Formats: sequence, C-alpha cells, structure tokens
Amino acid sequence: MSAEPFVVVGGDAAGLSAASKFARADTDRDVVVFEKGRWVSYAHCGTPYFVKGEVEKLTDMLSLSPEAAADRGIDLRREHEVVAVDTDERVVTVAGPDGTFEQPYGDLLIATGARALREPIDGIDLDGAFTLHGLDDAAAIRSFLTDPVEASVADLGGGGFVDEARAARFGAMEPPESVAIVGGGFVGVEMAEAFTAHGLDVHLFQRSGHVLGSFGDAVGERVEEHLEAHGVTLHLGASVERLRGDDAGRVEAVVCEGDELAVDAAMVGIGLRPNSDLVADAVDLGETGAIAVDDYGRTSAERVYAAGDCAEIDHVVTGEPTWNTLGLPANRAGRAIGQTVAGDPEPIGTVANTSVVKAFDLECGRAGVTDLDEARDAGFDPVSETITAGSRSGYYPGSAETTVTLVADRDTGRLLGGTIVGADRAAVRIDTVATALASELTVAEVERLDLGYAPPFSPVWDPILTAAKVLRGSL
Amino acid sequence: MSAEPFVVVGGDAAGLSAASKFARADTDRDVVVFEKGRWVSYAHCGTPYFVKGEVEKLTDMLSLSPEAAADRGIDLRREHEVVAVDTDERVVTVAGPDGTFEQPYGDLLIATGARALREPIDGIDLDGAFTLHGLDDAAAIRSFLTDPVEASVADLGGGGFVDEARAARFGAMEPPESVAIVGGGFVGVEMAEAFTAHGLDVHLFQRSGHVLGSFGDAVGERVEEHLEAHGVTLHLGASVERLRGDDAGRVEAVVCEGDELAVDAAMVGIGLRPNSDLVADAVDLGETGAIAVDDYGRTSAERVYAAGDCAEIDHVVTGEPTWNTLGLPANRAGRAIGQTVAGDPEPIGTVANTSVVKAFDLECGRAGVTDLDEARDAGFDPVSETITAGSRSGYYPGSAETTVTLVADRDTGRLLGGTIVGADRAAVRIDTVATALASELTVAEVERLDLGYAPPFSPVWDPILTAAKVLRGSL
Repeated sequence: MSAEPFVVVGGDAAGLSAASKFARADTDRDVVVFEKGRWVSYAHCGTPYFVKGEVEKLTDMLSLSPEAAADRGIDLRREHEVVAVDTDERVVTVAGPDGTFEQPYGDLLIATGARALREPIDGIDLDGAFTLHGLDDAAAIRSFLTDPVEASVADLGGGGFVDEARAARFGAMEPPESVAIVGGGFVGVEMAEAFTAHGLDVHLFQRSGHVLGSFGDAVGERVEEHLEAHGVTLHLGASVERLRGDDAGRVEAVVCEGDELAVDAAMVGIGLRPNSDLVADAVDLGETGAIAVDDYGRTSAERVYAAGDCAEIDHVVTGEPTWNTLGLPANRAGRAIGQTVAGDPEPIGTVANTSVVKAFDLECGRAGVTDLDEARDAGFDPVSETITAGSRSGYYPGSAETTVTLVADRDTGRLLGGTIVGADRAAVRIDTVATALASELTVAEVERLDLGYAPPFSPVWDPILTAAKVLRGSL
Repeated sequence: MSAEPFVVVGGDAAGLSAASKFARADTDRDVVVFEKGRWVSYAHCGTPYFVKGEVEKLTDMLSLSPEAAADRGIDLRREHEVVAVDTDERVVTVAGPDGTFEQPYGDLLIATGARALREPIDGIDLDGAFTLHGLDDAAAIRSFLTDPVEASVADLGGGGFVDEARAARFGAMEPPESVAIVGGGFVGVEMAEAFTAHGLDVHLFQRSGHVLGSFGDAVGERVEEHLEAHGVTLHLGASVERLRGDDAGRVEAVVCEGDELAVDAAMVGIGLRPNSDLVADAVDLGETGAIAVDDYGRTSAERVYAAGDCAEIDHVVTGEPTWNTLGLPANRAGRAIGQTVAGDPEPIGTVANTSVVKAFDLECGRAGVTDLDEARDAGFDPVSETITAGSRSGYYPGSAETTVTLVADRDTGRLLGGTIVGADRAAVRIDTVATALASELTVAEVERLDLGYAPPFSPVWDPILTAAKVLRGSL
C-alpha cells in the first residue's frame, strides 16, 4: 500500500463520505480533502426550504462541520482548488490562498460535483436573476426577498462561511414582487413554493408540456393543477429566450417567444452539468458527460476514483451507466470508495434514479424507467397503466387521491418503473417500487406483495398493489 | 366442469372477493354465498374508529352492499348458516330463515373467518363487557358510550343490518366513566384511543411485559410511553382473572392477580380463533388450528378451498404455514380462488405477516420474523439491531424519532424481518421491509437500496437503510 495520502477533490457528500469512512478505517495513511469553496458537506436539497424560511440557519444544513471533519482525522483544506491532475505522476496541482503547490496521491477521488446550467438563457447575470446551487445562492436569494430594513447577514446563520458581501448587496435591494421561474424541474417546483410563501406573484415557465418531466405526465398534470391552486401562473410549452434588464442591470422582464412579461426577479433551474472538465483528458467520460466508473467507482486511470454528481453509476433496471445527481447515491458511493481505498473493497451499488419531491402539499415520487421511449431504447417492450386510488380506507378521514403509474416489460412481466403523486404519504410509497426494482420483481410478484394495511394508512389494496393488478391485466 | 354452483361459506373479505372474481369470469355456473349474519363484506379494521367517532356510519365500512353483490351476479343469502359439510356427496346443509335445506356444490370455499376469544376471562358476559369482532359489537359499544339522551339507533347508520335491539339496550344505559381493556394487542391499543376520545379513564392490562407483542420490545416500549402520555394507565405483566359484576349484572370491577380495580366497562381483546370447527372432520387442519391449504388455497378434500381468517397461508420467510387474520391476504386469497375455480389457476401468494397499527399519533409496522426464538425455530441464526433516526432531514421541521429493528440470518445475511415505530410516516416504511422479504434480499442489498430522499420525507439515509447499515456491521 502506498504511503502517499488518499486525496479527495471536493468536500461535499461524496468526498467527505469517502474521507470519513477512510479515516474511520484507521489505516496508516492520511486523507486530504481539497474543497475550492468555503462550504463543505452541505445539504443542497435543503436550500429551497431555507429560502422559504422553514430552515432557519445556513449552518443547519451542514452535515459535517470543518471542525468535526478535523476531529475525524481528515485533513480538510477549504478554499483550495485542484486545478490539474496528473495521473501518470500521481500528483494534483492545488491553488490555495498561499499559492499553488503540488500534492502527490496514493489514491485519488474526484468528487467535484455538478454546476447549475446557465446557458442558453441570456441575461442570467443580471441582478435579481439566480440559479440555486449552493448555500451562497440560497443566502443571496433569501436576502433579496427580505425587506432591507430587516435584512441582516447575521440572521442567515452563515457560520463564517457565507459570502457576506453578496448577501448584503442583495439584502439592501428592494425586494421583488414578482418572479419568473425558468424550468419546472425540482428547483422550479420547490422554489415556486418558496417564492409564494414570500408573497410573490410567481410565473413558472416550462419548455416542455409538463412540469417535473422525469415524473411523467400523470404526476406533472396533478402538480400543475396544484401549483395553479396555490396561485402560481404556469406557462407550459414556453421557451424562455432571455431576461431583460433595466438601466441599473436588474431584471425587468422575461422574454418568451417574442412576448415580454414584466418581473422583478428570475430563478433559472434548467438543469445541471457534471464538473468533469478537470479530468476530461485524464480519465474516460461516459456518454452522459460524467466520469465513467466501474462497480467500485474506479475510473479508467489507475487508483483514480470518481463519485457523486460528477460521475456515472449503473442503473439497476437497464444495467447501463446513468447520471444521477441525488444525495443518497453520492453518499453511498463515497462511503464505498473510502472503504475500498482503505483495503476492504465495497461496490458502490446501483441506482433506480429514485427521487421524491414536495410541491406545496403534494408528494411526488418516481423510480426506475418510466419513459416509454427510454424503456424501448433499453430493449424493453414497455406497457404502462395509471390508476388513482385513495391513500386510506375510504371511510377513514383524510384519504387522499393517490395516482400511481407503473411500467412493465410485456415479454417478461418485469417491473421497469413507477411514479406516484398524492397528498397523503405518497412519496415514501415509491420505496416499495424502488425495492421491487432492485429485486427484479415481476408485476405479478408486486401484486402479491404483503404490504401493510390499516385504515389510517392504506386501503386494503395499497395504491401500488392496485396499479400492479391493473397493469398485469394489460400485459 | 361441474354444472353445480360454486358455493361460498361466509360473506366477508375472502368469501365475497372469491365470489366477485368468479362472477366476473362469466362462466356458465352460478355462485352462491351463504352468510350466517346480516352483515357482509365489512371492514373489521375500521370498527375502533367507528367507536371513536371518526367513522360516522356503520354502512360506511361496507365494501360491497348486498345489492351490489346481486348486481355482480352473486346469489347472496344472508342469515343462512351452513351447519354441515359433506365432502363425499359434495353437499352442504344450510339453516336459513325458512328452514334447513341441502345445497350441492361443484366447488366449495370455506371462508368462515375467526372469532374473538372470550376464554379464560370469567364475567365476559356481564353487561358492559365486550369483545370487538364485527359491526354489531361496534354499534353496541358506541351506543353504550353515548349519553342516553343523545343515543339513537338511527344515528348508527346501520342500513337495516344492525342488531338494533342490542344497540338500543346499551344506548339506554348510563355511559361508563372508566374501562378496563384486557389485552394490549391491536384491539386493545386502538380501543384505548377510542375510549380516551370519549373521555373515559382507561386502564390497559397486558399479561406479558409489553403491549403489541408481535411488534417486539422496541415498538412496545415506545407505544407504552405514548399511551401513558395520553393518560392511559398501563398494567403490564398483569393477568386479569375475571370481571366482577354488580347485582344488575353489569361490570363493576376487574380482578387481576387478587386485586380489584373498580371500572364501569371492560373491553376484552385477547386474541382470535379460526372458525374451522365446521369442517374439522372433513378437511385437514394445520398445527395452528386453522385449515391447511396448498398454494392455490385447496384443502385436503377435493374441490374444497379455504381462505381468510379460517385458513393457513405460507410465510414468505419460513416457507411454513402461518395463521394470518388480516384483510389483504384474505382478499387476495379469496380473489385468487375465485379465479382458480373459474378455470384460470392463480396462487394465493404468501404473507410476511406484515401489519401496521396506529396508537394515537404513533405509527407502528412489522413484517417477517422478528422474534429471535421464532427465527431459531425456523432454522435461522438471527442477529438483531435497533436504531433510532429522524424521519426527515434534521434541519427540516417535523422530523420525528423513528425506531427501526431489523433481524437477519448470520449465515446468509438474509433479512428475516423488521419493525418500525414513529410519528411521521413510519408505518408505510415497513412496506420496504415487506418487499425486501418477498425478494429474499440480504441486509447488504437492503443497505444499497436506492430509496427516495428529500428533506420533507426522509433523511439522506432512510431509517431503514441506517438500520441495515448497523445490522450489517454486526453480522
């Protein structure tokens, strides 16, 4: 085993999970984590709720403080950017506050994450236009939404990490009364709720026909009704070209297919891109643009691993690499790689691209392959059924309409994926689908699952069982 | 195929599911259902909530009315009791309002259900002492809890089926101010909530050390704390010998290990017994006392099936017959038998003995083999771990402590069972365990499941994943 340290590039979910697991294994090697920013190990997923005001302090969203990382024996260097990787010499070049230096590695983990897409929206650099990727963005947006009289950087709970100048600048501005959200994905839907809570007139622009595209039409349609019921104005099938600013360089309007709508702010959530540029010449990238890895997170370069939002991971249904930017797979892959590098090989696992999201009071979930074209591309002959059933026994108060779509392969009967939407415990029910996918269950096997039943929690036939029953009838 | 009808004995979940499925198959044979009572196809599980007052009418709990059954082509005969079965001659003897007659059958389904155990509690026939098994019991108890001035049989919503004389008699009595619940199982825990809602002083007596025994100690302990926090007085490890009545024959005290406690009412929920006596000489019974069946619900007698609370069903973990009295397996087995009898054989499936129950605001779930002795008896070398984790991201409001116990086999790593308790979406999470059990997943495979994560619904590592991680470390 090399005496050179385990070097980790990126101090968020995957990177610090790997470093923590490695440090706990108590080898005689050091682990060094280089993080280009000031924040480490923070919960991206919490940022809309910080903006909304349900999460009080930025530091509440840290799952590991720099001090706790040090206590675990991790040599954590914040504001240190790795600017070059030499896989032949096994050395990385690091730009830090005190200059640039070279750091040799025994093993290397690339955990550089992803970035919010800003193209092709022209005007995204105007004041009042934001993407949401990180706590500094969240701090700036919440400051912007707060009355200047009340806005205080200290109230953000930034713990010394936050970009105070940026927060203060937006805190001093007159708060917006209206906002254009560009993109109806996770960020768009969650931020619609956050902006509504602040009393803004919210316009959501979605290029395709439905919001939450990865959740399919049945979920999208119910979420749209629900967003409208909460006062959000939807612009579906509407391609935003640019944001227009006033003379002071502040957002004044959104321009969509030639028409202008006056707004005071804009939130752009049109997707992410993997931060794979750093190693694009050093390791193989996959078709997704993220770093290709094997079952243990190893890249094409010896002793170089990749995990989290910059890397691929295999899909449990298709067996093909997919690009997943969610928290659990990043944590799990990082943890597995830390264990592998420490000498006890552990596979990074697979994903069903399971995801859940809250849209005001609606809970949405999806797992597996639910798009029929995608299923065909993967070699399946997909059949899909959608049902709506109560979330509880019909006679028990609080039963909520729950819509489930399941997709299966006609030839084998194998379940390929599913989506769910409803106001009562809908999201966690997708875990049944995710578990069935990991086990390669057929629809008939899903129909016969012995799921829990009691009037306050489920009808006799859980909505997922009802969907399986109906889908089986169509196979 | 015989031209004689498909005869079903018992018009509840299993019986009417079978009859409905058979009738839909549109064969040229009739289906006749004999039900000894007036109620058919009603939701046992809803009765505590009817007593509590959350369910308004008795008829709300009917999943199929007699009229709807007739519309489906089912020849439903209520108040017809099958008193003898002759499997050689293929004929049943039926006692109905117009006398006794013989009914030949082509195929026969025994779906006679279960009954509430009344032994060995002496005094259970006193006024004010109840078991809860059926809508007439529920009607009597709710009437008893209602002030005589307000009590009205019409308010029960009995739809012409209810035992009005019994309800009226209890409705005329002075309502109780205190109650002894004998038995801390489902009925005991759910009725504690119902009686508390009516303002009674509630004493719950449990013979063993913990309530909800089938859910294990970790759940039992949390439920006990919660019951006490809601004002229920617990008497654990306390064997009730008898109920003592006053001169008018009404419950006056509960006698427990020589001590008396004055109470005005008693609720006895000490278990069920299968109604297998009718065919005890005609078909083989299993070790559980319920009717033994094969994978298609066939008994040892030709063309005689059994399903629901009177029959056994195989356990997915042990592969051995078990006795399960819950709604979903009864519905599923009945439906499968209806299809099989109609000529399209369908297995009745297996059970994990999954169950969920609400105890005031706590949600409890269990699935599989969770008792270590039971696991050893089944040939496993069980290892168990219990963890407590938040139900949501720690920074998100409303996260509730969720306690998960998982049990696995040391040799194979296979998951054997699990329990869960918590106030926030705990119960439905047991479905992940139930699905994993059906798929014979190992603990390592459970740990790598791609379950949903978003701050309002789950921490990054769902409590079930955390439990799997910890248990895997102990294998």
